[in-house]
Amino acid sequence: MFLSAVFRKRGTERLEAFSDGIFAFAVTLLVLNLYDPTARGSTNLLSGLLGEWPAFFAFIISFINILIMWINHHNMFNYIKRISREFMLLNGLLLLFVVLTPFTTLLVSEHLLDSQANTAALVYAGTFFIIAVVWNFLWHNATHFHNLISEDVPDACVKQIAREYIIVPIFYGIAFFVALFSAVASLIIIVCVSIYFGITVTGGEQI
Amino acid sequence: MFLSAVFRKRGTERLEAFSDGIFAFAVTLLVLNLYDPTARGSTNLLSGLLGEWPAFFAFIISFINILIMWINHHNMFNYIKRISREFMLLNGLLLLFVVLTPFTTLLVSEHLLDSQANTAALVYAGTFFIIAVVWNFLWHNATHFHNLISEDVPDACVKQIAREYIIVPIFYGIAFFVALFSAVASLIIIVCVSIYFGITVTGGEQI
Amino acid sequence: MFLSAVFRKRGTERLEAFSDGIFAFAVTLLVLNLYDPTARGSTNLLSGLLGEWPAFFAFIISFINILIMWINHHNMFNYIKRISREFMLLNGLLLLFVVLTPFTTLLVSEHLLDSQANTAALVYAGTFFIIAVVWNFLWHNATHFHNLISEDVPDACVKQIAREYIIVPIFYGIAFFVALFSAVASLIIIVCVSIYFGITVTGGEQI
Amino acid sequence: MFLSAVFRKRGTERLEAFSDGIFAFAVTLLVLNLYDPTARGSTNLLSGLLGEWPAFFAFIISFINILIMWINHHNMFNYIKRISREFMLLNGLLLLFVVLTPFTTLLVSEHLLDSQANTAALVYAGTFFIIAVVWNFLWHNATHFHNLISEDVPDACVKQIAREYIIVPIFYGIAFFVALFSAVASLIIIVCVSIYFGITVTGGEQI
Repeated sequence: MFLSAVFRKRGTERLEAFSDGIFAFAVTLLVLNLYDPTARGSTNLLSGLLGEWPAFFAFIISFINILIMWINHHNMFNYIKRISREFMLLNGLLLLFVVLTPFTTLLVSEHLLDSQANTAALVYAGTFFIIAVVWNFLWHNATHFHNLISEDVPDACVKQIAREYIIVPIFYGIAFFVALFSAVASLIIIVCVSIYFGITVTGGEQI
Repeated sequence: MFLSAVFRKRGTERLEAFSDGIFAFAVTLLVLNLYDPTARGSTNLLSGLLGEWPAFFAFIISFINILIMWINHHNMFNYIKRISREFMLLNGLLLLFVVLTPFTTLLVSEHLLDSQANTAALVYAGTFFIIAVVWNFLWHNATHFHNLISEDVPDACVKQIAREYIIVPIFYGIAFFVALFSAVASLIIIVCVSIYFGITVTGGEQI
Repeated sequence: MFLSAVFRKRGTERLEAFSDGIFAFAVTLLVLNLYDPTARGSTNLLSGLLGEWPAFFAFIISFINILIMWINHHNMFNYIKRISREFMLLNGLLLLFVVLTPFTTLLVSEHLLDSQANTAALVYAGTFFIIAVVWNFLWHNATHFHNLISEDVPDACVKQIAREYIIVPIFYGIAFFVALFSAVASLIIIVCVSIYFGITVTGGEQI
Repeated sequence: MFLSAVFRKRGTERLEAFSDGIFAFAVTLLVLNLYDPTARGSTNLLSGLLGEWPAFFAFIISFINILIMWINHHNMFNYIKRISREFMLLNGLLLLFVVLTPFTTLLVSEHLLDSQANTAALVYAGTFFIIAVVWNFLWHNATHFHNLISEDVPDACVKQIAREYIIVPIFYGIAFFVALFSAVASLIIIVCVSIYFGITVTGGEQI
């Protein structure tokens, strides 16, 4: 009780730094999914690299997704000025699934062209779906229970951002179901969704 | 002597940043323990992933543990306003065992279902036990020898936090001994302990 | 609209921190391309390490390149005081190719002495060429469309920096075409270019 | 010329952050040198782990060395208030060898008990020797050519720190020559030196 003032004053810097570290590290670890094709039997490096396109495709989609997530996370903290224990735990849950991304990307890289493609795409889209759901809980937690946002952010803005966030899991959910039928179509939906949100919304910021 | 003022003024920012980096990297490296099951002979990706549950189980427990540790480390620095050489060295000792976590997690991932499960769980629980012991020395060092904490933190609060921290190695010690008989039971104790401390205490903060 | 003020006030700290993280991780991941030569059949460690010189050569060139890029990125933010969504996306595109560097370095390490050397050097130089092109778009975006730079930076300085940046892709483009004929010559051009820019320009700073 | 004021005002934050990232990442990557002994033929995990002691020994020595280096780097910036291009390049050279540490540690881990132990220890000690030499150039550059240090640091202090730093390469040089005869003795010298400097000097700070 008596220390909450100290705690609340401290702000969000270190939570942002820790999250930034994990986003940056997860996005960099994606490169480990790319391999020298001659180590897998290609005799020509160029044709081997061209045949490795599923790995590059998955790398680029995951990179864009994590980048857009990071931009949105960054923008979210334009409004959030305090943190609570629950918020830190929810943010941690979000990061758990972000950390899984290099693994789900590996599954897509390895199986996009074989009979296990649908399973790989389901796991891949499912992870992004869960991230998008947790994201909504995070914003709800910040704005409803503890009012962690800055006082000078108008209510209309808070609600507009909530409306934007709520759409994201719907699209990832569609990508999840499409993965049952076509892995490539699911991936294309995912990359379109993330580019769309990267270009248009990014957390209520409207320059 | 004559420079201690400069040194002490500088505060804890860079120690926190370095520690944050190591917590964030260690938690992200956990993903490298997850593997594509078809690379180990599974013909069906879905059943292979389900059979990989020990790796996911160990991943989640370690992620939660490191996350809660980071939250507690973050909260500890709500009170600590200065650092000393001894504190930096003790904090480094703590980080050494944090860095070992991806390795101990690998041992549990690989051996939870075979005859070496008890050894793996002993190493796993033992590492967390040592971290919890060093943690107590860290708080003791900050509060007793050098008084590194902020002046406006009441003595009662310092003692309450010390009481909370002292319980943690006891529970990890229990998990260590249980590991002699059942690896799974030991892991369940560890995850319960870390969730309990994540939800209830987190360093004396009482919102 | 109504929140752009909040957003713009927030400054560039977290974008710099995220970029720093990716530069630092990418440069550190380069070490994973170095291998114990006895694991590949060398019986003598010393002669094995000497025979591994292409890996060390590629490691050093990539390290220097990423370091100089980071220094220039750092210096660029001496002038940039605000960020926009487009700038964040362009910066993300730049980082995507920075993250690829450990992979392109691996290709050069493995193939510098075999018949695939030209392909490896083309991919390697091509990636740096793309980074240099994106870099110019980044500066153009910062200075032309949104005027993200600090008000007290004179126009002459902005233009001088643009003139410096525009030269870089030309040299990497030359390295790309030279790679068609000689991989080693291409690498030597790359390291000379990056050392030259590291020593002489680094973003308009003129001490 | 005209922008040096802006540049110098900006301070050392981002150089410290980038260096912290590399120190933290290099130290965390050390864990990848530890392996599951059953993957190399051990049937008993416990005896396998005991037989893996060279890997743990090398891990601990490298961890301590990088930690002490980071503490000294941190303390050095208690005095340094400005940075120059040369300083950034020299600091980058230092980091290049820090990044090599997980590789040199791997060589020692794998060869401490075989006939290549001396070569591995020479590479290992040699890398630390070079780091210590570059460190002296770094301090010399900061204090002699550009006077990057804070005005309120007395000359006597600057010289005392220089005297402390100059001893370090001598000890690592001894470890290098001892490695010709005994790898284990060389490693013991290295760990003693780094603990001694960790406890006693750490950059002129005298609490």
